[in-house]
This record gives sequence, structure tokens and C-alpha cells, in this order.
Amino acid sequence: MANPSDYKHEYFNVTFPAEYVAHVEINRPEKMNAFKEVMWINLQKIFQTLSHDPSVRAILLTGAGDRAFTAGLDVQAASQGSMSQTSSDPARTANALRRHILDFQACITALEDCEKPVIAILHGISFGLALDMSLACDIRLSTTTTKFSVKEVDIGLAADIGTLSRLPHAVGNLSWVKDITLTARIFGSDEALTHGLVSGVYADKAAAVEKGLEIAKTIASKSPVAVVGTKEIVNYSRDRTVADGLRYTAVWNAAMVQTQDAKDAMLSGLQKRKPTFSKL
Amino acid sequence: MANPSDYKHEYFNVTFPAEYVAHVEINRPEKMNAFKEVMWINLQKIFQTLSHDPSVRAILLTGAGDRAFTAGLDVQAASQGSMSQTSSDPARTANALRRHILDFQACITALEDCEKPVIAILHGISFGLALDMSLACDIRLSTTTTKFSVKEVDIGLAADIGTLSRLPHAVGNLSWVKDITLTARIFGSDEALTHGLVSGVYADKAAAVEKGLEIAKTIASKSPVAVVGTKEIVNYSRDRTVADGLRYTAVWNAAMVQTQDAKDAMLSGLQKRKPTFSKL
Amino acid sequence: MANPSDYKHEYFNVTFPAEYVAHVEINRPEKMNAFKEVMWINLQKIFQTLSHDPSVRAILLTGAGDRAFTAGLDVQAASQGSMSQTSSDPARTANALRRHILDFQACITALEDCEKPVIAILHGISFGLALDMSLACDIRLSTTTTKFSVKEVDIGLAADIGTLSRLPHAVGNLSWVKDITLTARIFGSDEALTHGLVSGVYADKAAAVEKGLEIAKTIASKSPVAVVGTKEIVNYSRDRTVADGLRYTAVWNAAMVQTQDAKDAMLSGLQKRKPTFSKL
Amino acid sequence: MANPSDYKHEYFNVTFPAEYVAHVEINRPEKMNAFKEVMWINLQKIFQTLSHDPSVRAILLTGAGDRAFTAGLDVQAASQGSMSQTSSDPARTANALRRHILDFQACITALEDCEKPVIAILHGISFGLALDMSLACDIRLSTTTTKFSVKEVDIGLAADIGTLSRLPHAVGNLSWVKDITLTARIFGSDEALTHGLVSGVYADKAAAVEKGLEIAKTIASKSPVAVVGTKEIVNYSRDRTVADGLRYTAVWNAAMVQTQDAKDAMLSGLQKRKPTFSKL
Amino acid sequence: MANPSDYKHEYFNVTFPAEYVAHVEINRPEKMNAFKEVMWINLQKIFQTLSHDPSVRAILLTGAGDRAFTAGLDVQAASQGSMSQTSSDPARTANALRRHILDFQACITALEDCEKPVIAILHGISFGLALDMSLACDIRLSTTTTKFSVKEVDIGLAADIGTLSRLPHAVGNLSWVKDITLTARIFGSDEALTHGLVSGVYADKAAAVEKGLEIAKTIASKSPVAVVGTKEIVNYSRDRTVADGLRYTAVWNAAMVQTQDAKDAMLSGLQKRKPTFSKL
Amino acid sequence: MANPSDYKHEYFNVTFPAEYVAHVEINRPEKMNAFKEVMWINLQKIFQTLSHDPSVRAILLTGAGDRAFTAGLDVQAASQGSMSQTSSDPARTANALRRHILDFQACITALEDCEKPVIAILHGISFGLALDMSLACDIRLSTTTTKFSVKEVDIGLAADIGTLSRLPHAVGNLSWVKDITLTARIFGSDEALTHGLVSGVYADKAAAVEKGLEIAKTIASKSPVAVVGTKEIVNYSRDRTVADGLRYTAVWNAAMVQTQDAKDAMLSGLQKRKPTFSKL
Repeated sequence: MANPSDYKHEYFNVTFPAEYVAHVEINRPEKMNAFKEVMWINLQKIFQTLSHDPSVRAILLTGAGDRAFTAGLDVQAASQGSMSQTSSDPARTANALRRHILDFQACITALEDCEKPVIAILHGISFGLALDMSLACDIRLSTTTTKFSVKEVDIGLAADIGTLSRLPHAVGNLSWVKDITLTARIFGSDEALTHGLVSGVYADKAAAVEKGLEIAKTIASKSPVAVVGTKEIVNYSRDRTVADGLRYTAVWNAAMVQTQDAKDAMLSGLQKRKPTFSKL
Repeated sequence: MANPSDYKHEYFNVTFPAEYVAHVEINRPEKMNAFKEVMWINLQKIFQTLSHDPSVRAILLTGAGDRAFTAGLDVQAASQGSMSQTSSDPARTANALRRHILDFQACITALEDCEKPVIAILHGISFGLALDMSLACDIRLSTTTTKFSVKEVDIGLAADIGTLSRLPHAVGNLSWVKDITLTARIFGSDEALTHGLVSGVYADKAAAVEKGLEIAKTIASKSPVAVVGTKEIVNYSRDRTVADGLRYTAVWNAAMVQTQDAKDAMLSGLQKRKPTFSKL
Repeated sequence: MANPSDYKHEYFNVTFPAEYVAHVEINRPEKMNAFKEVMWINLQKIFQTLSHDPSVRAILLTGAGDRAFTAGLDVQAASQGSMSQTSSDPARTANALRRHILDFQACITALEDCEKPVIAILHGISFGLALDMSLACDIRLSTTTTKFSVKEVDIGLAADIGTLSRLPHAVGNLSWVKDITLTARIFGSDEALTHGLVSGVYADKAAAVEKGLEIAKTIASKSPVAVVGTKEIVNYSRDRTVADGLRYTAVWNAAMVQTQDAKDAMLSGLQKRKPTFSKL
Repeated sequence: MANPSDYKHEYFNVTFPAEYVAHVEINRPEKMNAFKEVMWINLQKIFQTLSHDPSVRAILLTGAGDRAFTAGLDVQAASQGSMSQTSSDPARTANALRRHILDFQACITALEDCEKPVIAILHGISFGLALDMSLACDIRLSTTTTKFSVKEVDIGLAADIGTLSRLPHAVGNLSWVKDITLTARIFGSDEALTHGLVSGVYADKAAAVEKGLEIAKTIASKSPVAVVGTKEIVNYSRDRTVADGLRYTAVWNAAMVQTQDAKDAMLSGLQKRKPTFSKL
Repeated sequence: MANPSDYKHEYFNVTFPAEYVAHVEINRPEKMNAFKEVMWINLQKIFQTLSHDPSVRAILLTGAGDRAFTAGLDVQAASQGSMSQTSSDPARTANALRRHILDFQACITALEDCEKPVIAILHGISFGLALDMSLACDIRLSTTTTKFSVKEVDIGLAADIGTLSRLPHAVGNLSWVKDITLTARIFGSDEALTHGLVSGVYADKAAAVEKGLEIAKTIASKSPVAVVGTKEIVNYSRDRTVADGLRYTAVWNAAMVQTQDAKDAMLSGLQKRKPTFSKL
Repeated sequence: MANPSDYKHEYFNVTFPAEYVAHVEINRPEKMNAFKEVMWINLQKIFQTLSHDPSVRAILLTGAGDRAFTAGLDVQAASQGSMSQTSSDPARTANALRRHILDFQACITALEDCEKPVIAILHGISFGLALDMSLACDIRLSTTTTKFSVKEVDIGLAADIGTLSRLPHAVGNLSWVKDITLTARIFGSDEALTHGLVSGVYADKAAAVEKGLEIAKTIASKSPVAVVGTKEIVNYSRDRTVADGLRYTAVWNAAMVQTQDAKDAMLSGLQKRKPTFSKL
């Protein structure tokens, strides 16, 4: 297992509620879990560690408190931070901004690059960065009272940390994608479920977290070789032709089907018992 | 603002029902708004002008009359037009047809290439070209009585002006895409909403137009820099890997987040007032 | 028409229930239509023949018996077959496995490569290979009691015969894709319809087969030139940018709109009679 | 044939030195054929007309006078033109500039989009736009005294009208591509030939033009169906995988090998006579 | 080793001149090795067998006799074969032709798909199909008297069996690619070497074959795991972004660097002896 | 300027021989600059710092001593390092190896990701990693005695740190690429220049370094906005279609042509004086 101190980062709680399951909690409830720069940098560190931690096979991502998964970017902090760096030359300012955006994107993409599946629980206020982050996760659950908004156009910006790039590949109604991204209107879990943004809606945060934990435990009980491969191949294939997806899969599995896990899983199935798998 | 005469084109009415909102009406109700060649050429001209008109930030596209958004291609006219050009040599005929199809596609793609979002209201008969056109728009709304059909196989053709290329990226059920494109059957708004072709269904044309206008006004009230960027990046990302989408977004926003609009929007938000933005 | 003997292959029944309609039945009901190697090789042979058979314009794919469309891979047989070939060198084993996976994928891709549309009826147990196969078909229908599962992680594997590569392009909820592929849980037709895996759910197998046959007959009544082009262009476009889809479509139709079928279909439309089309 | 007046455009001479051969001469020798905005717009118009002119099968592109093919952008004119449009808002300026660059690129891409092959003769000063333009042509010839330079970094810009996008696909030494684009140094035909920028070097402008005309005549003597297809498929394949190139080729030729030209060409070959082909 | 009878196919001689080296000779010298349909079908069979034959690690491809590697398609035979199938409907003819072209392409692509490297010796007349075939090989050598021609435009066709799709990715002068494909002119080994079509030119056929055999022996002396991976990754990367190439390589080598060959090769290197590798 | 201590890393010397020019020297001459793991990690750190250092506009990369740029991987060290991590499960070993290869690739790709151009001087022994590294640089120069080899097949591996992915896009003779990668033979600068691997060959190391420094100074004298954009766009375009390259360029330059550098450069040109540009 990774060193516990690897998971100590300001504004985050990392716990291990079940075998092979990690729980990452965004912990700035007094500001509705709004993000300032140190937070996304810490998020990246945590998920880079989780990715290779042999004691982790599935991850739950939640926000502390009742009010919000996250209200998004802490605009006040952002306006004082590196985003405000400017040169009198628009080109030099642009170059500094591009570097900043790429770094910020990379922090959020750490959720997608994490080898282990991540389940996000969207409750309460889930604005802006809530979408950027959860779209880089694997499974999205919400509650009957979640308030979603792709908030960026309201602050004069096209969302640039991932929402606009991932949304068209994640949901099944491009007209709705344009509606919510162009109007920044608040919508609820009913729409989120109908159009494919979440795959489950629960009565309240507690119920959603409980369900998320149950899914995480289920995933953690499977062969980690199979789970890591499944996440990798689905994400790879999402972005490419079916032919390229198949070819990549064949190369991937050429190594992976040699795993002892397959034999153990099949044998356990025949013997009606629960298999155990060694660490990855 | 563009010169009013730039918007005078046969078979179309262009009006400006609200600040920064344009309304384009297909106006051939006596033929259920069926399209002949001059109409798609005029459509292209109108949307190329709207794209760069600083007085326009959102566009509504509707069909005149109660019966149809459009019944599609005016087959009778088409059979007498350039589609009927043939040489005795199948290769030369093919070359002429390819040029014609590419030109026709380009006219419809003008809707997608228009920098400003376009909201299509699909009412009554919405066959063939109704799908090609509205799939090149950003937001699609319909009514409880809309009759949709991807009609082309009924006239011996694979749809070639955009429906078959855009549909798999616009909706969330590929089985349904094959069903409607292979059978040419008529379907209603319930299916269109369930499977993701439209994002809202309203009681009748008047209600749908009212809603479309409301969405257009909302979009027109936002920063045009943010709106244009959002449309561009969603369309770009629809077609590409997430990694390429993120990279393009970073370069795009390197210039665009320098906008005064972001500062104005944030300040207005803090001051609880409505911002105004200069023309784009 | 292809020679009847071309359709005689162990574990499959091929019949012709209506003009231009073929019906392929997986026929190993005593093992819940579980697949062993000879079966996927035979499947490929059958669909390669159907693809070019001028007497076939639409195809129905079903499983024999009441219990299952297919329970998936016959794990016992697989463990004794070529999958079990190993060398003491992991690299040599990997190369043998890669060849095997590519061959197996090619057999299933024969469904997608078949020029004529294929309608799959998923009833009863529809596990593992049931998804791989039906996702390579064009239209998927199911029944109120179908039990679906992307079963592979339960046997220690990432699904490698097509499910993971095709699913993200076929349905409209990527969170749900991850949920079902990572947990291997069993789900029903309600979820399959909501999230876009099937486009119709019927009371029982008989009703679903009847509906599938009706759709097949409808497709078979259309111009085969239009039908083959529609399948080809939708599949091509699913994997590519809209711009590339449009360009390919223009080249495709440059030849295909020269068909006599278009003239016959239009004329028949005007004369309110049913057109007939010559063989393809 | 296109109407002669379609070819009358300021700063260009269009002549027809041989059957089916057009010669476009950039005609502003007093300014070393430097380009101002009207010129690239006229270039686009001329090549759009040539593309569909049935009397044209091959095109020669040269610069008037002894001193230069073209010295590139007329910087003085550019600094007074639309490039100088600015808003006080860097984002609005960026949007205006993006539109301008896209329009300018489209004018140059007209050379590549022209269905008929274009042979560029690079003589004397061939700076900046000389590369952008000739890289959008099909065949590039030069003289022993041609002076080439990718000049843009010397005026504080990355070349944006096509050189940087086409050069890595046109020549065979990426180290050299970086050398010439990053240093803006002047180089000669020896390097241009060695590294693959031109395919022939001749003693002087007259000899190069004569050779270019000879190649144009040779191309013009072939089947225009074969020639147009060859240009299209090579350009398509340059940008794509071999697999996609092959698939596109098969669809293209499915129509084109039906041409009477193939029969005529083969028969003429057997009979040792020169075939004639009807207009395209 | 594959069964010797697997290599008995009309118009081809397959021999094994050295350990792990196969030699495929096109054997129709009386017709300058011109190809008729049975020949490309046999070519495919042979290379599909060689691909998986554990006794083969490198392959030499030559033409029998002194006069030609191959004069290309046997036009006379082609005009009587399946290419001549036509329907009175241009669309049906196009569909038949597309199938035929795809099948023909697949036969030639068998050279590229063969896991083991193929070295082509181009001597004498090397027209048309000589280019299609050798461009699907890995290494191309020629002689001082080889006569090359991309002959297709001379028979009214755009080359459709691979030359136009592979050439822009194989050589380093796109201007020259257009020159030779648009004019069909005959060129020699000097140009072929300068512009990158061949990598070695030898005095005569005997010398070129000797050199080819030497290269084949060298390759055959290396680890087959390393050789097969190198061919695969170079071909994969040729067609894709560097980022995709790197990712694929990492997955490929994750299995392959586990090979015993790496340990044996390193140890042999330290011990200054020649390693032996087990069969692949 | 970055802090000098940012450039202190074992096995590397970083100096600043001219204004805005950095010189990175691989410094392990007693082992012919062979690489062990700490070295590629340090290489990454150095180039990540250089990328954003406003005092750096061009970079020279050389190897210390007379004998070698680098002999490649220190095989002895590698066999004791993380490459040797293994599990008894081939799948778990594969996962560990994949992580390792991706990390290693990322270190080398830091050369390509560095915003500023990098000029590599290949002298003496330049084996294995010498190619991986220099192919990730922008300009490659060598000497008359450089000995090149893509050495990996000699140690039983397909090269996996970048050579096989970058080479087909960097040089102009794919036959030669296969020859050198499949045989691992040693070749000299004559071949490297002819086939496009280097763009200049000099008498000895001193002369090549002098020339490299001269090029670096030239680049450093240009607008850094123009230089950074040129590197970025050429690399982007190398991997993509011309259409995508043009679109990206337009977005990039929409910000960048607003630079004061363009005005300064043009004015300086008119005034025949050397411009100075502010830091980037």
C-alpha cells in the first residue's frame, strides 16, 4: 500500500472504507467545496498515487457537507491567482494562459488517467468544475435534489477544463448538450438521468454514497487485471474507430489473458465460491 | 449590423424579434416548405451573413405555416434540376453528381459553421431535409404532433446531405438510428425525445417557438465570446479524441479568456446586476 | 441466390421466412446457445455468404429455444481450445493469443461487415458474447424478461471480442457503460432501452421475433442500393468526423444515385404503387 | 469551356498555351509579385473556375518577370488592410483575426481543391507565400537560381496560410523542415531537391516553364477521369491511414472504372495509337 | 513448419534458401510475370501461411526471369475476368466493382499484414502492380536497369490496389509522387533512390537478390519477437500520431519485453556469441 | 530566468553560451554517455524547466567526450533496475512494464514538449536511445564519423521509447526505415543525410557543435512568439490532416499575431536594424 502520508493533502480526506476501496472527499464545505489552485494540484497528486496503489481497486469521490459536491471554481481566489497573470502583449498573455489551462486540465485528467475506476457522487450544488471533474470519472450518481449547471458562460468563458470535450462523448443528446452549455441553466437529476449524464439517482446524499460504495465494493471484488483493462479499453475506444479499438484490445489482452486471475475466476465460478486475486 | 438587404432572399423571412436574436423562417408553406435548389443556396447565404453579423448572438429557425417544418426535398423540382444532369459515361455522371452533392452539403453545413447557435423548431411534417438541416443546428425542439421521417430510402437513396453523418454523433441509441434510417418509418416526438434527437417537446408550434425564442434570448444575454467559443469547442470535440479536444480548447481560450467580458460578467455577478457585452 | 449448401453449418439454422429476408438461428439450445470455436467460425461463413447473396436484403438473428439468446462463451470448451495454447515464453504466448483474438474478433465483425442489415433478437439469457455479437448487428430488440450481462470481468478478463469497443459508440450514457462493464451485473430491458442498447422491448420472444421480422420485411421492400448505402454510411460516420463522413457519402452516392431504383421509387410514389427493385 | 471573362482578374493572366492546358501567371512584376488581399481572392476565383472547366485538364502556375515567383505577402499593404483590424478587447481581435486567417487559408487551399493538377514554377525570389501556394500545388519545379525562404518568423509570425501544415507531409526530412521554418534562412534549389521540396531543377525560368508545360501537356493527354481521381486519392491518402485510403479508393473507383476512357485507353494501347477522351 | 503443400500454388515458387528465410518467386516469366486473378489470390494464400509459419522469419520476393519483376496487371486477362462484370444499372455495377477492388486490395495487403518482414527485389520491368505490391513490402531494392512506372493513368484509371494510398507515406517528395502518378512516365533507380522509393540499388538482378538474401538472413538471425514487433509498430506508427504510436508501443512491449529472447540476446552480447531463439 | 539550481542534475551540464541559448550536455563520458534511469528522469526535469524559462529561446543538446553522443541504454544498469521487476503473473508483470515504458517515454517526449527548439549534435557512437532522443528534438546535425544504429533488435526488443513511432514521420524513405530498424546495422552520416535523418553533416564534433550553436543563435534572435508557434504548429501538423493543421493554426495565430513582436519585426526590417523582443 502507498504510504498513508501520500494521501495527506489539504482540503481532501482520503479513507479506506472497505477492502481495496478508497474514498476521496473534497473537504472545504464552508465554501461549498469551491476549488482554488492548491486543490486541483492536490487532487492530481492523490489520484496519481491511487492509480498505482496495489491496495486500491475502486475509488469513491464525494464532497464534504450537505450543500454541495462543489460549487465549482472559487472565482474570487482565481481572480487573484495565476489566471490573472498578464503581460501588456496579448500574445505573451496568451502563452501564459495556455500553459495555465493545460496544467489545470492535466490535474482533472488525472481522474481519467487513474488506472482504477472512480465513482463520483454528485449531490447538492454541482456547478462548473463539478461537471469537469465528474466527466473525467467513470460512474456518476446523483440525488433527487442535485442542482447541476455548466456555469462557465455565466462568467464570460467557454468551459475549458474538460466539460466541453468530454460531454459530447458521455451523453446521448447533443441538442441537450448545447442547451445546457450555452444557457448555463440549472437542471436536476431527472434530466441528467434521461439524457445520460448520470446512471443512477438516489433519495439523498447518504443513499447515493451508500450505493456508490456498494458499486465500488463490487468492482473491488473482481480481478484487478480485468477491471483495469476494462476501464482502459472503454476510454480508448470512446475516442477512436471500432477497428482501432479492436486492434488495441487484442494487443492489450494478449498479455492480460495470461493472468492467473482468469483461471482462478473460472474455477471459483465452477466451485461457487468467491475468488481472491493478488495485488496489481 | 449587416445590411437588411443581405437578408432578403426568396423563400425566407429573416426578422429580429429581440435584441441580438434573429429569426429565420422557411417560407414556402404552400408546398409544405419543400426545398428546391435556390432555397438551399439562399439558406447558405443567410447563415453566412448571420455568422459574422455583430448584431446577432442567437438564431431561431422555423418553417412557415401549420403543416410542416419542411416536407424535405421538392422531388419534382429536383428531378428537373441539376441532379438530373447525366452523361452517357457513368464516371462523368458520377463526377458531376459528386460536385453537386458536395455543394448541397456545404449549404446545409453553413448552419453548423455559423458562429452563433441555431435553434430549430421541428413541427408538423419534418421529413428528409428537415433532419439534415436540424442536425446541423445546435438545439432541436419539437411539438407533440411533429411527424419525423428519414425519408431517403423511400426514394431509393441513402441520405447524403448530412443526416447519416451527423445522427450517430447526435443521439444515444445506434439501434434506433439504424431503425429509422433503414425503414424510413414516421415517428413522433416521444421517440425523438427518448432517444435524444430533440431536447424538448411542447404542446404545439406556438409553444415550441415561444420556448425557442426564450432560449435564444437567454443565449443572447450571455457574453458572445463565451457563446461562440462554447459552440465551436463542443462541435470540435464531438468529432475528435478528448485529448485533441482539450488541446484545442487550451489554445482557443488562451486568447478568449483575455476578454473584458469575463471581468464584466464576474463583477456583475457579485453586484447582482445584468452585464452588457460589446459586439462581436 | 447462394447455394443452399452454403448455409448448412453446424449449430446454425438458416431459413428464408419472407422474400429477401434471411433468418439465422443459433442452434445449440441444450447449452443455452453457448459458443465454442466452430460456432463463431461458422457464423462468419454464414454472414460472408449472406453479404453478397442477391436474394437477401435483410437478416434476422435469433437464438433457438426459450432460455437464452446465448449464454456467451462456452467456458469449458474454451479452456480446452486454442485459448489454452501456451508457450513457456510469455511473449510467444502473447503472440499466439493476439492471433487468436484477432481471428475471433474478425468472425464477429462479419456481422458488421455484412452489407445487409442484421436485426438481433435478444431474449432470455444474453450474456457476454450476446453483447459482442448484437453490438455488431444493426438493430437490437429484446423482451421484458431478457437478462443482459457484460460478463467478462467475472471470469477475470476485459471483454475483447467487441463489446468494449462498440458500446461507447452505440449507447448514450457512458456512466452506465462503465457500470455494466465494470460490475458484470445482470440488468434488464428497461435499462437497456433507457440507456440506448435496444430500440424496442416486446412482451416475449415470439412478439420480439415477429416485430423483428416485420422490420426485416420493411427493409427488404426498399431499394437494396439505398439500404446497403445507408448501413455503410452510418457505420462509417459513427467512427469518423462529420466532415469525413460527408466526403465519403458524396463519393459513395456519386455512383449510387445513378441507380434505376431512384427513378422507380419516385415514380411508384407518385403512382401510389409498390416498386420492385432488381437484385443487388 | 468557362467564359473567358471568368478568367479576367486583376494581377493575373490566364492563357491556354495548349489543348486542355491552362497557364495562370501572377502578374505584379513591379512588386516582385507580392500579394495583397485582392490577389489571393482573385487566385481563389480563378482556380474555382478552372476546377470545373471541362476544357482544362492541367494547369501551370508561374510568376511574371525575371525576379520573383513571388516575394510573398505585400507587408506594407497587409499592415493597412484587414489584418490591422483590432478591437481594444484581445478576444474580439482574436475572433476577427481568426476569420481573416481562415478566409486567407481558403483562398490558397483552392489550389489543392482544384480538381485538375497544378504545376508551380518557382523561380527567383520565392519567399513566404511562395511556399504556402506552391505546397498547395501538385508538382513543384525550380531553377538553379531560385531563392527560397519560409520568411514568416522574420516578421514575428508563425506561417499560418499553409506552409507549416503541408510541409511535414510534402518533404522527407523533418529536421530540415524545422531548420528552414525556424531560421527563415534563404536556401537554394540544391537543398530543395535533396530534401524533397521540388522534383526538378532547371537551368533558368524559361527551361523550367518549358518543362512544366511539357508535363502539363502529358497530363492533359491522359484520361481526365484517371487524372482527377489520381490527384484526389493521393491528397486524401496523404492525410490518412493506409486502410482509410484503400477504402476511399475502392468507393471512388467503383464509379470511375466504369468510364469509357478505360476501354478507349486499353484499345488505343493495343492499337499503338493516341486515345482521345471526352470532356469531364 | 507449415506443410510444404501449403506453398504449392500456381505461378509461384516458394523455397527456403537459408534457415528461417523464405523466398517467394513470381513465376510467369513468359508473360513478364503479369498478374491475372488467380495469381493475386495465390499470393494472399502464400503470405497468410508465411505469416504464421514458425520456420519463417524473413521473406524475399522476386520475379522469375530476366525481363521483369512484373509488368503489372495482365490487361487482357483482366478484361475477360470479373472486372468486366456489369449490370445495366451503374449503381449495381459499382457495388460489384467495389467488392472486387476490396478483394484485390486485400490480397496485396496480405504482404503488409504478414507478420514477418518482406524484401522485394525490383528488377527489369516493374510497372503498375509492381509498385502496389512492393509498397506493401517492407524493404525495396532495385537494379541499375529497373524500369519503374505507375502505369494506371495510361489505361484510364487511378491506381486502386494500394500505390496511391501507400506512396505518400513511403517516400519523401510529394511533388515527385504527383509527377510519377499523374504522368505514368517510366523512371529509373536513380530517381527511385533519390526520392526514397528504394533503399538500395545494385548492379544487376543477381547482385540485388544476393543483397536481399543477406538482409533476410540478418533479420532471420535476430529475435523473432523483436522483429515482428518492429514491423508491426513501424507500420502502425506510419499511419498515426506519435502519441498514439507511443501508447500502442507501450502496450505491445508490456508483453513482449518479457521474452526470454531479451535475456538471451543480452547475455550473448556480453559473451560475444551468437544467440539462438526459439520459434515464434 | 529559472533558478540556476534548477539546472543542477547529475550527469548533465547546463550552460548558457549565448544570449537566450542554453546548452545541455550529457555528461557520462566514461560510459560513452550511456543512460541509466536517473539520467532520463533528470533529462525530463531539465527540459521541463527550459520550456518555461523566459531566458531561453533555443537549446543545444550534445554528449560529453569524443567517443559518443550516447551509446544508448546502459544495459547492465537496466537489467538491475525497474525493468527487472517481475511478478510470477505475466499480466501483472505486463502492467508494471507498461507503467515503466510510459514513464520512460514521457521523459524523452519532454524534448518534443519543450516549447523552445532543440538542436541535437550526433557525434561518435549514436546508438539506441541516441535515436529516440534526437528524434524528439527539432534539428539533427551529425559528423562524418558518426556511427548510428537503431540497436534494439540486437537485444531482443522492438524499440519502444520513440524511435519506431517518430522515424516514419521524420524521414523520407520507409524502405530504409525498415532496413535500419530490422537489421540494427550501423550506418553513417551519408545515409542519414540522404534519407533525411539529419539535415547537416560536419567535419567533426567541434564543427558540428559550432554550426549548431550558430543555428541556435539565429533562432534566439527571432521573435520567441514566432519561434514557439512554429515549433508547435509543425509538430501538430506532422501528426494530422492538413485541414486540421490549418484550423489549429488559425486559432493559434488569432492570439499570436496580436504580438508587438510582429510590429517591431516589420519596422526593424524597414529600418534595416536588428529588433529586440521582450521575454516570453
